Amino acid sequence: MDDDPLQTLLDKQAIHEVVLRYCRGVDRLDMPLVRSCYHDDGIDHHTGFTGSADDYVAWIDVGLRRFAGTMHLIGNHLSELVGEKAYAETYGTAHHWGEPLEDPALNFTSAFRYVDRLERRDGHWRISERFAVREWTRSIPADQVRAKEGEGPVACRDRSDPVYRR
Amino acid sequence: MDDDPLQTLLDKQAIHEVVLRYCRGVDRLDMPLVRSCYHDDGIDHHTGFTGSADDYVAWIDVGLRRFAGTMHLIGNHLSELVGEKAYAETYGTAHHWGEPLEDPALNFTSAFRYVDRLERRDGHWRISERFAVREWTRSIPADQVRAKEGEGPVACRDRSDPVYRR
Amino acid sequence: MDDDPLQTLLDKQAIHEVVLRYCRGVDRLDMPLVRSCYHDDGIDHHTGFTGSADDYVAWIDVGLRRFAGTMHLIGNHLSELVGEKAYAETYGTAHHWGEPLEDPALNFTSAFRYVDRLERRDGHWRISERFAVREWTRSIPADQVRAKEGEGPVACRDRSDPVYRR
Repeated sequence: MDDDPLQTLLDKQAIHEVVLRYCRGVDRLDMPLVRSCYHDDGIDHHTGFTGSADDYVAWIDVGLRRFAGTMHLIGNHLSELVGEKAYAETYGTAHHWGEPLEDPALNFTSAFRYVDRLERRDGHWRISERFAVREWTRSIPADQVRAKEGEGPVACRDRSDPVYRR
Repeated sequence: MDDDPLQTLLDKQAIHEVVLRYCRGVDRLDMPLVRSCYHDDGIDHHTGFTGSADDYVAWIDVGLRRFAGTMHLIGNHLSELVGEKAYAETYGTAHHWGEPLEDPALNFTSAFRYVDRLERRDGHWRISERFAVREWTRSIPADQVRAKEGEGPVACRDRSDPVYRR
Repeated sequence: MDDDPLQTLLDKQAIHEVVLRYCRGVDRLDMPLVRSCYHDDGIDHHTGFTGSADDYVAWIDVGLRRFAGTMHLIGNHLSELVGEKAYAETYGTAHHWGEPLEDPALNFTSAFRYVDRLERRDGHWRISERFAVREWTRSIPADQVRAKEGEGPVACRDRSDPVYRR
């Protein structure tokens, strides 16, 4: 935080928001939003996938639609700036659910760390290369899933979700 | 982050802290702190409740006291400023526990997104309307609960909690 | 955020990063990094331990090596500055895993709040005293652990982890 402390904070905030937008895009099935988190020539390394951001988005889009819902809940986010580059690590758990509840391939939680190299180009921070490091995966027993105990705000995987209301 | 980048960061920090204080208030049973996170005419929409912030605080106060403890653990927090208004989404899981451990109504985790509309009035950001979107709820099997393996700092649901020590 | 708003944000960011580096240090078995988060005369209170930061680091180092991996996933972080001191509360869950999967002493998640008193000395914020408040601990049933479903980035508990790549 030496040269320009305010700019450092702004850069860190912008980088954090890239990762946050990625999660929103994945969970709301907003693939253009997911794609916008990577540079045109971005690269992604996931369990079971390695390749371009374009191919990654096509791959994850198919995978996500198998589920009734997902929630990419992130915590620890620590970034370091090196000129026009940055390195960021983000911890999280990805919750997946679907029908039938007894199918462990549709009902599980995986823990990960996103290890990202980002670059600022034309004033925009985006991911140049992501390593999604898998920590563990655990299935969710069907008998632990509880029904909603009343009426209330409902999540949607499109623009009808409450988050898009203005 | 155009007009006044520092003010943008300050506003985002203040908004994030509103949501953080809300969680502390709920988990420490500090209802005045919870109430202070909403404007006087604030509105809340939860599963099983919709109404004024006043009524919400009275309702949640009763509900919380059924448990031995709760933990509202939040992660993703993404806000957008539009003049004196803001829109914020916060992901989290709410852990609930109580006796007997075999009672699934007292031992469960629910995942949510707080979708908040906030306003700055008299220099203070507070929630004008909250949609607590429920993602899933899962019971905690009694046989997975483990005793504390030694002496150590203990949580309290009042001002004797370590967080209030100065 | 009165006197110098930018400095307040910088201090809060620096304090948050102390806690983030602590988690990285613990999970990557980087004990010098863990140690650097405390002042020389720092004190730590954990379940089963209370004493100096030096002794804490030696104690946790032994404890951590029993596991195949850990993940200290933090969320809520709320700090208050009082001159050259600060008070911070951080919520989190600590995931632990090891072989055999059937051993509940090696496969569990504990939830905590780090309640920290920090001080800025010589321009560096570090922990003067930490209370690691335990909220709950739950074992992970072996039959819920799922194998990785393909090749992908792998976590390491040393400098070969992807987070250290530059």
